[in-house]
Amino acid sequence: MAAMSSLQLKTPIQSTPFPKSYTLTFSNVSFQSTRNRSGIKYNNKRFQIGCGLIEPDGGKLVELVVPGPHQDGKKREAMELPKIKVSRIDLEWVHVLSEGWASPLTGFMRESEFLQTLHFNSIRLEDGSVVNMSLPIVLDIDDAQKNRIGGSTAVALVDASDNLVAILNNIEIYKHNKEERIARTWGTTAPGLPYAEEAITGAGDWLIGGDLEVIQPIKYNDGLDQYRLSPSQLRAEFEKRNADAVFAFQLRNPVHNGHALLMTDTRRRLLEMGYKNPVLLLHPLGGFTKADDVPLSWRMKQHQKVLEAGVLDPENTVVSIFPSPMHYAGPTEVQWHAKARINAGANFYIVGRDPAGMGHPVEKRDLYDADHGKKVLSMAPGLERLNILPFKVAAYDKTQQKMEFFDPSRAQDFLFISGTKMRTLAKNRENPPDGFMCPGGWEVLVEYYDSLAASDTGRVPEPVPA
Amino acid sequence: MAAMSSLQLKTPIQSTPFPKSYTLTFSNVSFQSTRNRSGIKYNNKRFQIGCGLIEPDGGKLVELVVPGPHQDGKKREAMELPKIKVSRIDLEWVHVLSEGWASPLTGFMRESEFLQTLHFNSIRLEDGSVVNMSLPIVLDIDDAQKNRIGGSTAVALVDASDNLVAILNNIEIYKHNKEERIARTWGTTAPGLPYAEEAITGAGDWLIGGDLEVIQPIKYNDGLDQYRLSPSQLRAEFEKRNADAVFAFQLRNPVHNGHALLMTDTRRRLLEMGYKNPVLLLHPLGGFTKADDVPLSWRMKQHQKVLEAGVLDPENTVVSIFPSPMHYAGPTEVQWHAKARINAGANFYIVGRDPAGMGHPVEKRDLYDADHGKKVLSMAPGLERLNILPFKVAAYDKTQQKMEFFDPSRAQDFLFISGTKMRTLAKNRENPPDGFMCPGGWEVLVEYYDSLAASDTGRVPEPVPA
Repeated sequence: MAAMSSLQLKTPIQSTPFPKSYTLTFSNVSFQSTRNRSGIKYNNKRFQIGCGLIEPDGGKLVELVVPGPHQDGKKREAMELPKIKVSRIDLEWVHVLSEGWASPLTGFMRESEFLQTLHFNSIRLEDGSVVNMSLPIVLDIDDAQKNRIGGSTAVALVDASDNLVAILNNIEIYKHNKEERIARTWGTTAPGLPYAEEAITGAGDWLIGGDLEVIQPIKYNDGLDQYRLSPSQLRAEFEKRNADAVFAFQLRNPVHNGHALLMTDTRRRLLEMGYKNPVLLLHPLGGFTKADDVPLSWRMKQHQKVLEAGVLDPENTVVSIFPSPMHYAGPTEVQWHAKARINAGANFYIVGRDPAGMGHPVEKRDLYDADHGKKVLSMAPGLERLNILPFKVAAYDKTQQKMEFFDPSRAQDFLFISGTKMRTLAKNRENPPDGFMCPGGWEVLVEYYDSLAASDTGRVPEPVPA
Repeated sequence: MAAMSSLQLKTPIQSTPFPKSYTLTFSNVSFQSTRNRSGIKYNNKRFQIGCGLIEPDGGKLVELVVPGPHQDGKKREAMELPKIKVSRIDLEWVHVLSEGWASPLTGFMRESEFLQTLHFNSIRLEDGSVVNMSLPIVLDIDDAQKNRIGGSTAVALVDASDNLVAILNNIEIYKHNKEERIARTWGTTAPGLPYAEEAITGAGDWLIGGDLEVIQPIKYNDGLDQYRLSPSQLRAEFEKRNADAVFAFQLRNPVHNGHALLMTDTRRRLLEMGYKNPVLLLHPLGGFTKADDVPLSWRMKQHQKVLEAGVLDPENTVVSIFPSPMHYAGPTEVQWHAKARINAGANFYIVGRDPAGMGHPVEKRDLYDADHGKKVLSMAPGLERLNILPFKVAAYDKTQQKMEFFDPSRAQDFLFISGTKMRTLAKNRENPPDGFMCPGGWEVLVEYYDSLAASDTGRVPEPVPA
C-alpha cells in the first residue's frame, strides 16, 4: 500500500480532460459545483430544460447530502440514535444513493422496492410510471443489531472507525432471504460469486430500508476522489461542453485500441446521425471488484496514459469514476449500469458481449450467454428512453497492424487477444503486437503485475476509506 | 388405476352447477360452445363489448385449435415434418396455450419472451403495452432432436403414442440454461423442487419456440374432460349468467368450510360494492401436481360433495378445471394463476397466505415468505386491471362450532387446522370437529387415503391422456 501511494504521487493524473474544479455560468446563476450540491440541484433542472440532457429517472435527480448549514444539527440528532456499523461495500452504496445514481431511490430499499427489484427488475412509481431497478440496494443487519434498534424509527450509520456517515429515517426492517436474493439476482446459487461471498453469504438475516440523510459527501482519500464526479457534476460538465448527445462506456478493464476504435467510431456514427457534439463518458467502475481484476488506481493510471497518447480526444471525452460496487450479475447488472448512466445524463449506452459477466464459479463455462446482456438490456422496463449501442467486435488486424472491426470475409487476417491473453503477456513482461495498446498504457499494466509479483499476495489491496 | 377408474364410474359427477353442453344465443348468433371454437372466438368478442367482462391480455383471446374443415389438411402437412415427442406436462402446456390461458402467447416461447419472463415477469407487446408472464412456457429438445430438425422451419408435436398433437411453426431454437431458469423462477436451485425434477433437470439442452397450430382440442379421457372449460367457454358461461363481476378462487386442495366462508363473504362484499351478480369461478388446478397432493379426480369428487351440501350456491358458482401444471413457485407462480384467470374473464382474484408455496425442499422452513405472494401480486406489471382480494384468515371457532374469520381479540376461541393436520385426521379415519367440512366431502378424503393405504404406493397415479 505504501508502494502504491508513492506511485500515486509520482504519477499524478494532471492532464485529465476535465477540470478538477469548475465554475459554470448559466442564466446569471454562478455556482461552484464541488461545493454546493443543493445549488446544483436547483440549477441543474434549468440546465436540462435549456440543453436537453436526458431527464433523470423519476424526473428529478435525488441528492441526499445534508446541506452544510444543517450538518451539525444532524450530527447532534444522530448522537441519540441506535448505531449501525456499515462495511466498505455498504459505504459504496451510501455513496451511490447519496448522489442520485439510483434516482428515484431515496435510501436503502424497503421491502416493496426489494421485491419489485427481485421479481420485475423495475419499480412502479406513484404516478404509475416505471423505472428500471435490477440490483437490490439493501442494508443488512443481524439479530443483535435489530434488537438494539428496538422501536426506534431511525438509525445512525457509522463507518469502521465509528465516524458518522448518515441517518436512515422511517426505517422498515424485513427478512433477508439470502438464498432467494442470490438466485434471483444471479440466476445461480453456486458458491464463489464474488459479491455474494463478500457481502451476502455472511450477512445478517434482516434488511433495513429507509430514507437516507448523508452527513457529508463520501470520500475515500485514496488520491482519486477528484475523479468521482456525481451525476449532478457530470450533467454540469456535459452542459458546459454543449453536449447534445452523451454516450457512456462502462468498463472495469484496461482500455486497448479496440475499445478506443469503438468509442471513436460511435462518435462518428452519432455525428452522422446529426448530433453536433456527442461527448463520451468513459466511466470506469470504482467500487468493489473481484480479486483478479486490475485495481481501480492502476486502471486510472492506464486510462490517463491512453488519453495522453491521444488515442481518445480529451476535447469530447469525460473520464470519471462510477462509485458502484460490482456484482458480476450479467444481464441483471447491465441494466443497473445503464440506468445509473441515464441519471448522469447519458442517452446512449454502449454494450458489449457478456457485459458484467464472468466464468461460472464451479462449472467450466461462462455464467451467462454472451448475447443475453444486450438482449435483456434492449427489452428492460424503464430503459425505453436509452439508446442501446451494441458493441462491434474489434480484433487485431495483422495486415494493418492495428485494431480494426472484425471482417468475417477475411477472418484469417485477424487475431483475437482475450483478456486472459492480455494479462498473461503483461505478467510475463512480453509486449502485445504493435497497435494493440498505446505503449504508455501497456507499461502501467506491466508495472501493476510486477508489483503483484513483488508483494506476492495475489492482489494489491485497495486503500480503505478514512 | 383400475381401482380409480371404477370409483370414477361409481360416483359420476352429475349435479354440477354448470351444464355439460350449453347453447347460448346472442345477437341472433347461436352456437354450440363445445364444438366450434372459431365460432366462439368471433362471438366472444361481441359478448365482451355487450356485457363488459374484463378484456383478455393483448385485447383478444388467443385460440390455436385448427378449425374442423382444415384439420385433415394440417395432418397431411404434419406428416412431412420432423417429429418431436412431447411429455404429459408438455401436453398440458399445449392445452393451456391452445385455449388462450396464456394470451397473447401464440405458442411456446421464443427466446425474447423467455428472457422477459425470467427477468421481468412480463412481456412488452409491439404497441408498447405490457402483459404479465411469470412462468416460462417452453418446450425442450435434446441434441438428437435438434439435429433431426435440421433446417426445417416447423415441427410436428406427437404424444407418447405417436398421435399428432400440433404443428409448431416459425420455430426458433435457443439454449436451455436449466440452472438459470430454475434459479430465476423459484429463487432457489435446491434439489427436490417437484416441477424441476419432473420436467427440467433431465430435460434437453435446447428450447424450441414457435407458433402453435393444435390439430384438435386436447382431451385426457379421464372422465373429467367435460369440466375442462376453456376461457372462451367460461366467458360464454359468465355472459349467460349475466355476471357483472367474476371472482376466481385457485385451489389444489379439498375445500373446507373456511374456504366456503371466504368465498361467500367475498360475494357479499362485492354485492355491497354495488355489483348485481358476482359469480365465483371455483377453479381447481388440473395439471401436474406433486406426489403428496390429493389427485384431481378425488378433489373434483370432494368439490362436488361440497356443492351438493349447499355450502356454496350453485346459482352463482362455476366449477371448472384449470389445465395448467403446478410449479410450486410461490410469488412467481401466483402471477401466472391470476393472469390466466383474467383471460377467462375474472376481474377479481382471491389470494391467500403463501400462494403456490411449499416447504423448502432441503431446509426446515417454508420456501417463500407467506406474505410475499400477495405483495408481489399487488405490484406485478400487467396485472393492474385485476382486483386483488387478500384472503382473510379463517379458523375453527370452538364457541360456535363452525369456521369463522379469526378474531385476535378472542384468540383462545379458535383452532387452526393445518393441511397436515387435516391429512393426518383423514388418514387415521378420524373426524375433524363438526363444521370444519361437510361430511360428504370429508368421506371422499377418507376414501382417498384408504385407497392409498390399499395400493401402498404413496399415491394413486393419475390416468394418462390417450
